[in-house]
Parts: sequence; structure tokens; C-alpha cells
Amino acid sequence: MNPDLKKERDGASFDPEKIVNLLYGGPDRVKRKRKLESLALNDPDFQHEDLNFMSREQQYETQLKKSIMVVQKQEKHGIMGPEDSAHYVYNGAFKAMAGPFGLHTSMFLPTLRGQATDEQKDKWLKMAENYAIIGTYAQTEMGHGTFLRGLETTATYDPHTQEFDLHTPTPTGTKWWPGCLGKTSNYCVLMAQLYIHGKSYGPHPFMVQIRSLEDHKPLPGVTVGDIGPKFGYAGNDNGFLRFDHVRIPRDNMLMKYSRVEPDGTYVKPPSSKLAYGTMVQVRSFIVSEAAESLAKAVTIATRYSCVRRQSEMKPGHPEPQVLDYVTQQYKLFPYLAAAYAFMFAARAMVSVYFRSMERITRGDITVLPELHALSSGLKSLSSWVMNAGIEECRMACGGHGYSHASGIPSIYAEHTPAATYEGENTVLMLQTARYLMKSYSQSVQGEKLAGSVAYLAGVQPVPVAGRTRDVLDLQVLIEAYQHRAARLVHEAALQLRKEQQAGKDQPDAWNATSVDLVKAATAHSQYFVVKNFAARLADPAVDSSVRAVLTSLCQLHALHGVVNNSGDFLEDGYMTGTDIRQARRHINALMAKLRPDAVALVDAFDYPDGILNSILGRYDGNVYEHLLEWAKASPLNKTDVHQSYHKYLKPFLQANRAKL
Amino acid sequence: MNPDLKKERDGASFDPEKIVNLLYGGPDRVKRKRKLESLALNDPDFQHEDLNFMSREQQYETQLKKSIMVVQKQEKHGIMGPEDSAHYVYNGAFKAMAGPFGLHTSMFLPTLRGQATDEQKDKWLKMAENYAIIGTYAQTEMGHGTFLRGLETTATYDPHTQEFDLHTPTPTGTKWWPGCLGKTSNYCVLMAQLYIHGKSYGPHPFMVQIRSLEDHKPLPGVTVGDIGPKFGYAGNDNGFLRFDHVRIPRDNMLMKYSRVEPDGTYVKPPSSKLAYGTMVQVRSFIVSEAAESLAKAVTIATRYSCVRRQSEMKPGHPEPQVLDYVTQQYKLFPYLAAAYAFMFAARAMVSVYFRSMERITRGDITVLPELHALSSGLKSLSSWVMNAGIEECRMACGGHGYSHASGIPSIYAEHTPAATYEGENTVLMLQTARYLMKSYSQSVQGEKLAGSVAYLAGVQPVPVAGRTRDVLDLQVLIEAYQHRAARLVHEAALQLRKEQQAGKDQPDAWNATSVDLVKAATAHSQYFVVKNFAARLADPAVDSSVRAVLTSLCQLHALHGVVNNSGDFLEDGYMTGTDIRQARRHINALMAKLRPDAVALVDAFDYPDGILNSILGRYDGNVYEHLLEWAKASPLNKTDVHQSYHKYLKPFLQANRAKL
Repeated sequence: MNPDLKKERDGASFDPEKIVNLLYGGPDRVKRKRKLESLALNDPDFQHEDLNFMSREQQYETQLKKSIMVVQKQEKHGIMGPEDSAHYVYNGAFKAMAGPFGLHTSMFLPTLRGQATDEQKDKWLKMAENYAIIGTYAQTEMGHGTFLRGLETTATYDPHTQEFDLHTPTPTGTKWWPGCLGKTSNYCVLMAQLYIHGKSYGPHPFMVQIRSLEDHKPLPGVTVGDIGPKFGYAGNDNGFLRFDHVRIPRDNMLMKYSRVEPDGTYVKPPSSKLAYGTMVQVRSFIVSEAAESLAKAVTIATRYSCVRRQSEMKPGHPEPQVLDYVTQQYKLFPYLAAAYAFMFAARAMVSVYFRSMERITRGDITVLPELHALSSGLKSLSSWVMNAGIEECRMACGGHGYSHASGIPSIYAEHTPAATYEGENTVLMLQTARYLMKSYSQSVQGEKLAGSVAYLAGVQPVPVAGRTRDVLDLQVLIEAYQHRAARLVHEAALQLRKEQQAGKDQPDAWNATSVDLVKAATAHSQYFVVKNFAARLADPAVDSSVRAVLTSLCQLHALHGVVNNSGDFLEDGYMTGTDIRQARRHINALMAKLRPDAVALVDAFDYPDGILNSILGRYDGNVYEHLLEWAKASPLNKTDVHQSYHKYLKPFLQANRAKL
Repeated sequence: MNPDLKKERDGASFDPEKIVNLLYGGPDRVKRKRKLESLALNDPDFQHEDLNFMSREQQYETQLKKSIMVVQKQEKHGIMGPEDSAHYVYNGAFKAMAGPFGLHTSMFLPTLRGQATDEQKDKWLKMAENYAIIGTYAQTEMGHGTFLRGLETTATYDPHTQEFDLHTPTPTGTKWWPGCLGKTSNYCVLMAQLYIHGKSYGPHPFMVQIRSLEDHKPLPGVTVGDIGPKFGYAGNDNGFLRFDHVRIPRDNMLMKYSRVEPDGTYVKPPSSKLAYGTMVQVRSFIVSEAAESLAKAVTIATRYSCVRRQSEMKPGHPEPQVLDYVTQQYKLFPYLAAAYAFMFAARAMVSVYFRSMERITRGDITVLPELHALSSGLKSLSSWVMNAGIEECRMACGGHGYSHASGIPSIYAEHTPAATYEGENTVLMLQTARYLMKSYSQSVQGEKLAGSVAYLAGVQPVPVAGRTRDVLDLQVLIEAYQHRAARLVHEAALQLRKEQQAGKDQPDAWNATSVDLVKAATAHSQYFVVKNFAARLADPAVDSSVRAVLTSLCQLHALHGVVNNSGDFLEDGYMTGTDIRQARRHINALMAKLRPDAVALVDAFDYPDGILNSILGRYDGNVYEHLLEWAKASPLNKTDVHQSYHKYLKPFLQANRAKL
């Protein structure tokens, strides 16, 4: 092991294993996690050259091959359930990179399970679960994303033949983006506008075969293909799909909720809010994904910053470890803290979700709006922070961060879409804001507010100026975040009213206030994250050495947010310039305190080298020896002299030499 | 043309051609620019399929082929000088993507011109200028970047043979990153530690042949290759290079400044500061590059936001253009303003540079420190803003931004290294800070300060609280930025002293204050950008309709910086909460005012479609029709059924079906 990294590990104030257990739910689950990860990482069938060395087609093919083996091996090893799959499939076999069966498991199967009738399940679910067919979920169109009612693909019922006629009327109505659609799937659940007797009933789900089971060719009337290369996601054949009056039987509409009778009678679903549950769950996963992707980038950058030595801090002294520069700490430690904060937030979200689902399945859907608001805000906040953070980590590795050897460009390119998929972040923040505005006005009218927004009832718009505070005290910080969120909600509500009083109608007033609304919803989400982080530490089961270091991290997280948004805390005089200056000095002191524990804190995320897929982030720190080895294996180095020399460079150079 | 875009253009308050002339220096230069761009863009020899469709090797080969033709055609068309080349080569033929001759022209030739003696020029410069040899500049090593003195490659003089022995003693001493080194160059200027009679004289430049002119094979003792795939820069063979006691004649040291006599006597250079000039010039180019890359991304996102319609703002109304959402304006308009601000800043830097070079060539090098500080700060600030801005633009395009069809991922991946190369941003900001600290302490001692820091002499640490201000007034805003920068410099200086008084030595105190120092240097650079933008508008030659719209942009730029860093203006009471709230409302009003001019403002950047290389950003707005066409041309769609189906998917599906 690199001696610098060894020294870091020897000097840590706590045993990282204790945090591993805290993060992953105890020794048994950690053991299971590691077993499944190494089962995948050590499987010779899953070895292949670095995806970064391959063309996009080769990447797709590699991931397809692996996807098939994963299905077979999962069965063999008895791996099931989302947690096992996350370890074995997502992190282990795929290193969190996209593959061409992703949508089959994440959307196609769940939709069939949730929206098909029992007869429909008999017909398709077993085939789908046994991979006799491969499917995806085709909703987004080229011209229509967030706004479901804007979809253009039509499913027109013909009572004479008892069939639906599927049709794509325009270029913008082309299905566009569905994962695994371009080359892999032979079936899909299609969201299309239902028309019966000339009347529109809005978007509904249909089970549609798109490719032949014999030769995989597109069925007549179906145009399907890959949407072309993207920033990342090379292993996923995101696709396009068009229909030219393709007919499917009436029974192919997924009819668990809405139904169309043979004569064309439309039967409405009992409640339209049930689908929210899945959305909430998907968003919780994204918070987790954001935390994990950020944690991976922070792991790489932190380890490398202890191996890398650079410049001369003091004349004649050896070059210091880069992590000894306070500016480097200031780049990495706040994101280290954020990764922990979002991991805890994601876990809290998941447990709130499961508690809420119990109530929902008992028929109580009153918790849904709150749950929706919370999950939307956290999804947006965490993916924004992840995006900025991964790139900060990459650039903190200097030039080498830019090489695929660092592993960070792939992490970024692969996970940055979390900010735009499953609900574009700003749109989602505005949905959170809508809930906050509603809650706020309920509180003004004296109604009792739900848990996560109860604090809005206690808004104190008048600041208490001149107080002195211990801004290192977590309780003081939580109150500050609460006050800020409450004030911003209050002020956004006032501004909204002002815009209306100035003559705007409600939608225009909302639009004119939307920047303030996003700000308020972000502050609300940040408040949740800080409060939840602190609450996690209060658990008496947390080991004291762990509590000590995580408390420093939590303080850093909260203080960094204060300093970074200091205007929000100063604007109404809630905090003073002295508070902010103090906060800055506390941050410096906390970073100095965390410095010796930095490597142990990233080790505690427990990502083995195989998952990180980074030369810079190697556990043993033997970075430089392996950089050259990695480069030598890359395609341009297969020969000393590249073929292009003979084709282009040699005649050019020779001609120029002859002219001299 | 897309009717929405046509309406935008018809409704603009000014003629974009007037801004084009302002940006590019008048009608004659605009005409030349367009002629050269279209000469390259329409040349059939330069056409090839989208680089995003190619493997990395294909990209390298394509760019190599084009590089050769560019050299030949430049000569034919009489294209020379940096401005012509920027239009014809950089933007036209290469669309701002890297190619394998880049370092030959940007570093190899200038170094020979600047550091070779006349005899050495006779020997090599003509060959290099005529591309009889291809060279690069090999300085950075695997373990050593910013810190030149840390380089490990040695050049040991042997007076018996009158040769230098070149050697790479360690893995970390491997030359790493030099552009065009991996496969293309047969020569390089090598920076190596000079040793004579066992004594070290620091890094010096040597002319070294690395590959055979006969068969391009590495010469004996030379190990050279490509460093492997990177985030971007696929067309550039950034390389590695190792020497195993390779001998070169004494004459191969570039001896214009330092010399080694045959007997080993070392002759010192007259001044060591002369090299600064080139660095300043390179950094001015980076400010330009940052502004241009940001402008391209803003052009794409703004046009697409007028074509894209999304959601329902008012019940029953058609889906509005995305740019009508205030949150979308808030994403794009501040970066539109920043792109203009940095274009003007870059142009100002270049003219400051040329004015200074006159003085420097007259032997007056007193301007160098100021010039160095200004260029370092602007390089860092502009590339940071560019990075954040390009990604904001990409995500503002929703899902489609993630597709390479948007063109934005390539702009990002190709230009983001500006933050880490040619001086890592934080390191550079700290160099600016060092100059600020020095100037500040000179001013405290009563000395007169140089132009760009003269304001530090007038620091007023005591705020004037309670004033009311018109924060829309550019003069008020400039004063606010000036006050903020002066205060932050002042406070960083105090903090630095405090750390020393608390017992730290100078380097430790500097390190402990470094976050504050970076903040102060950033504020100083922002102040320059705002002041310079406003000054540009004061030019009486600027057309009044242009001045009106650019004044709004300048106000938006300044106000957005105030709101985004409101704590800095509030902390000492210089601004009040009321000022900040006003600033926010002004921003909303300015965005509404700019909304009808947004498309004209990006049209005025004058990037033809060929350069933008974006389906979303097409001038005619016919986005959707061309998305499908682009996708269909991509490699995975060459066949309806991909070969991997026959290899992997078919047997898998059939076996599963048989089991049911």
C-alpha cells in the first residue's frame, strides 16, 4: 500500500467498519453486500476491457452479453430483491453503468404487475419474468416529456373489430428516449391517448409487441431504432418508436384501473392518485443514486489527494500531499459531508415511503401530497448537488481527473441525467413549492399542518437581531435552516399575492414568482436534510467515535450551506455579519479536525476497487504505476505506429521534406 | 424557418448585425470571418460523419487527415495570422474540437521562435514551419504539473562527448499529457532538469527527436505512446514519453537565454520574467475560448427554448414556449449576459496585453505582475463560469440536452479542461491573491498602486448603512463590486495577519487564509468584468438600440452576481435586505425586457450551424424533423437487427421460451 495512504488509515480516529455497518444496516447485511459484490466482481464471465476503450456498439454488445449472464447467474445464486440486486447487478456486475435490460426490470415488469388484470398477468407476466420476452416502457415523446397530457401517440378504439389502432400522427409524437427500446426490446408498455367514438380519454397504458419473436425484425407498421449516441448511457439503447396504424386487440390495454368494454364503454379508475406511489419510490432511489455517485467521486478524489504531492508549501520542504491545502479540503470535504447527508436522507425517505405505503394500502391517501413534495424536493436537490460535486471532485484531481483513468468522467456522464429524468428538477421543485404554498395558506387559516411542514405554522418573519449565537451548535443551525425556509416560503407567498394584486392571473403570478418559489422549496429540502442528518446522530446506538466524526461532518455540511447562502440568513437580520464570519472560521477548524479522518471516511463508503473503476482512486494508492499500464492497454497503443501514419502522415511529411 | 423562431427574430428591438460588428471589429472583419468560416464549412474535403458516431481511433484519424489538408489549404488560400486561423481552422474546419497538430502550432513553433538561437532556428524552424517535422512541447509529468521545479526528467551534461544524457528516473517522471505526442509528433521541446558536474540548474528546454523520420518508430531508448481515452479531446493524442539514457548533442539545448558552454560552464539568462508574456497571452485566449464555448451553449439552449413547447401554463391554452417560463429565463439569461461580459473582458485583456508588450519590449517589465494577476484571475473566473454555464444550458434543454444531437455534451467535454490546464484555477486565483495582498500592503504603506488595483487604496471598511440606492444604476453596481472586492481583500489581509499573530509561519498562515484569498481574488476579477462591460457600453460609437439591450444585459449580469453572492454585500451592512429584494425584482423585470431580444442576442454571436454542430440549436429551428434523421444515421441503426441479437439475445430468448 502507498505509504501516505497507510499513514492516513493508521491515523484515523475511528474504525471505518463501524460506519460501514451504520450505512448498510449492520454486520449481516454488510457481509451479504460484500459477498454479492465480490461474487460479481470476481466472476471471470463479467471481466472485459475498460468500457472507455470501446466504441459505443462494443459497449452495447458487452453490456447485453453481461445482462443475459446476470439473469442466468442471479437465478443460479438465488439473488433476488432490490437490495441484493443493487449489490450484485447494479454495483457489482455493471459498476453502476447502464445496460440494455434496465427498463425491463425497473419499469416493464412493475407496470405489468401494477396495471395488468389477473388475466393479463397470466398471459404476459410469466413470459416477461422469465425473459421469454423483453420489454420497456414507452412514454416520453420527442416533443413531450413532463406534460403527460401533451402526448400525441393515439390509441383509437374500433368497436367493430374490437381493436385499438395505434398511430403516430407527427414527428413530435415519435416515442423518444425509452431505455432498451432501440435494439433490445420486443415488447413495450405504450402510453397513448385513448380515443373512443372521437372522444379523448387521456393517456392510458397498452401492451404492444413491436418486434417479431422469430427474427427480431420490427413488425409491420412499426418503425423502431436507437436515438443515437448520448453523453453517457452508451450501454443502453434508448430508442425511438413510431406507429403507422398498427392494430392491437382490445385486451392489450392494461385494464386493472381504467377499462374499455367491447362496445366502447369507458370505465373510469377508482382513484387517479395511486400511481404516485411508484413515482415516490423511484425518486427515493434517485436520492440514493445521487448520494452514491457523489460518494464514489469523493472517494476517488480524496484518496488521490493524499497520494498526490504538489508544489512547495515551505521552501526546501518536500511537496505536501494535495489534501493538506486548505483550498483542496474546501473543495472536497463539503461534498464528503453532502454525500453522507444525502445517504441518510435517502434512507429516511425510503422508510417514510414504506410507512406511508402501509397507510396508503389501508386506503388512507392523505399522506401522498406530503410524500410527493418531500421526494420531489430531495430528488432535485440531491441530483443538483451530485452534479456540481462530481465535477468539483474531477477538477480537484487536476489534469488526471480529465482522463478516463480517473473514473470520474464516466460517473458524471452516466449519472448527471438524474437532474432531468423522472421529473425535470425545476419542475419538481415547483411541485414542492405548490405544496408549501398550499400548506402555508392552510396554516394562515389556522389549519394543522402535516409533519414535514408543521414548522411553517411558526413563521417568525420579524427577525431577532443582535443576538449572539453559537453557530457550531447543531440545534442553532437547524433552527437557522428552519427560519430561513419558513421566511422564504412566507416571502414567496407574499410575492405571489403581490403579483396577483398587480393584476396578473394566477398562472402568470405563479410564473412571475417561480424563481422565489424554487428558492423556497430548495431551502425547505435543505432544512430536511440538515435536520435528518442531526437526528440520525442522536440515535443512542451510534458508537461514540463515529458520532464524534459524523457530528463534525454534519456541522460542516450545515455551516457550509450557511456560508454559501449567507445572504439568505443575513437578509432579514436573522444572522449577523459576525455570525457568518464565525461560521467561516468554524469551517476552517472543522476541516482541520476532519483532515486526519478523511480517508477513513471515504473508506467507510465501502466501494471496492472493482466498483470504483478508477486508477486514481485505488484502495492501495499505487496510482502512478497503474496509470501507465492502463494507458498502454488502450486501443491507440496496440501498435507503436498507428495506421494513420502510413495513410496520411508519411506522404505529407515526405513531400514537405522534399520541398525543403 | 420554424414560425416561433421567425416571430422571435421579427420582434427583436435591434438589428443583430450591429452587435456582430461590435463583437468582431466592424463589417470588414465580419465579412472576412464569414468568408473563412464558410470556406472551411463548405469544403467537401472537410465533411465527415458526426464525430460522436466514431470510435476514438476513428476520431483521431479523421482529425489527422483534416489537419494535413488544413495546412495545405491554408497555404493555398493565403490564410495566416491568429485571427484568420481562428475562423478558418479552429471554428471552421475543427468546430473547436481538438486535432493532432494543435501543439505544433500553439507551443512547438512559438517555443522554437522564442527560445532557439539564430543558428538553431536555421536548423529546425524552417523544417517545423514547413511540416517536414511535427513537434510538441513536453513539460508536464505524471506526478508533476503546476510545480515546474518538481520535474524529474533529467538532462545531464557530459563534457567529454559534449552531449546531454536524457533520463526518466521514476514512474512519476514520465512525461504525461503533452498534446499530439502519443502518435503524431516526431520531435518535441522537452523540459528537463539540467545537471552539470552533479549540480542542478533547474528546468531547461531541449530539442529532442523522438521518432524515426523513416518509419516513425520510437528511437532507441525512447518509450512513447498515447495516454488513453479522456472525457473529451479524442482527436488529440495526448501522450506519454520516457527516456532511458538517450543522448543528444549539446546544441540541442535551446540556448537563446541560458547556455551551456562545451566545457560545461553554465551561462545564466538575463531575466527570468520574459516567459510570463506567453503565459499571459495563452490565458487571454482561454478567456476568449470560455466566452465562446459558453456563447455556443447559450445559443443552442436559447433557440431550442423558443422551439420547444411544454406543459400547460393556463388551462386550455396551448403549451407555451419553454423560454416563457421565468425559471428558464433565470437559467439562461444570466449566462447569456456572462458570455457577453467575458467576450468583452477577453478583448480588453488582449488589448491590455498588446499595450503592455510594447512596454515590455522597451525593457519595462514593471507591468508584468499586474498583467499576470489580471490574466490569472480572469482565466479562472471565466472557465469556472463557462463550466457551470454550459451544463446549466444542457440541462435547460431537458432530456434532449443529454443527447449528442444537442451538441452541448461535446462542447462541455472539450472545453472543461480550461479549468485545470495552463495553470489550475485555484492555484492561479491564489497567484492573483498574492498580488492583491502585496498591493494592499503597499497601499497601507502609502505607495501608489497600479491601474487595476488602484481602488484598493480607497478601502472603506466602515460601511455606510441605511442608504437607499438605485441598484439598477450601473455606477452604483460598479461601486458595490468595488467595495466588496476591496473589503474582501482587506479582510483577507487582516485574517492573514491574525493567523501569523497566532503563531503560524507565513506559509501556514497563507494556507489557513487561502479560502478567503480565493474569494477576494474572485471578487476582484468579477469587479473588473462588470466595470469593463459597462465601460464598453459607454463608447459613443455604440449604436443606441444596441446600447439599450446590452445595458439591460450588463445590469442583469451585475445584479445576478449581487443576488447570487448577496451575503458578500450584506455582511458588512454595505447593502440592505431591501437592496437585495429590489435587486431580485429588477432581475425579473430585466428578464421580461430581454425576453423578446433573446434570440437576436444569441444570433448576434454569429455561429453558423456548421460550427454549432447541434440539431437543437439549428438556426432554422427545424429541430424535430432533423433529430430522427440524425439518429437514423448513427451506427447502431445501420441494420434493423443488431448483430448482437444473433450472438446473444436470440439463443437466450429461445431457451427461455422453451422452458415455459
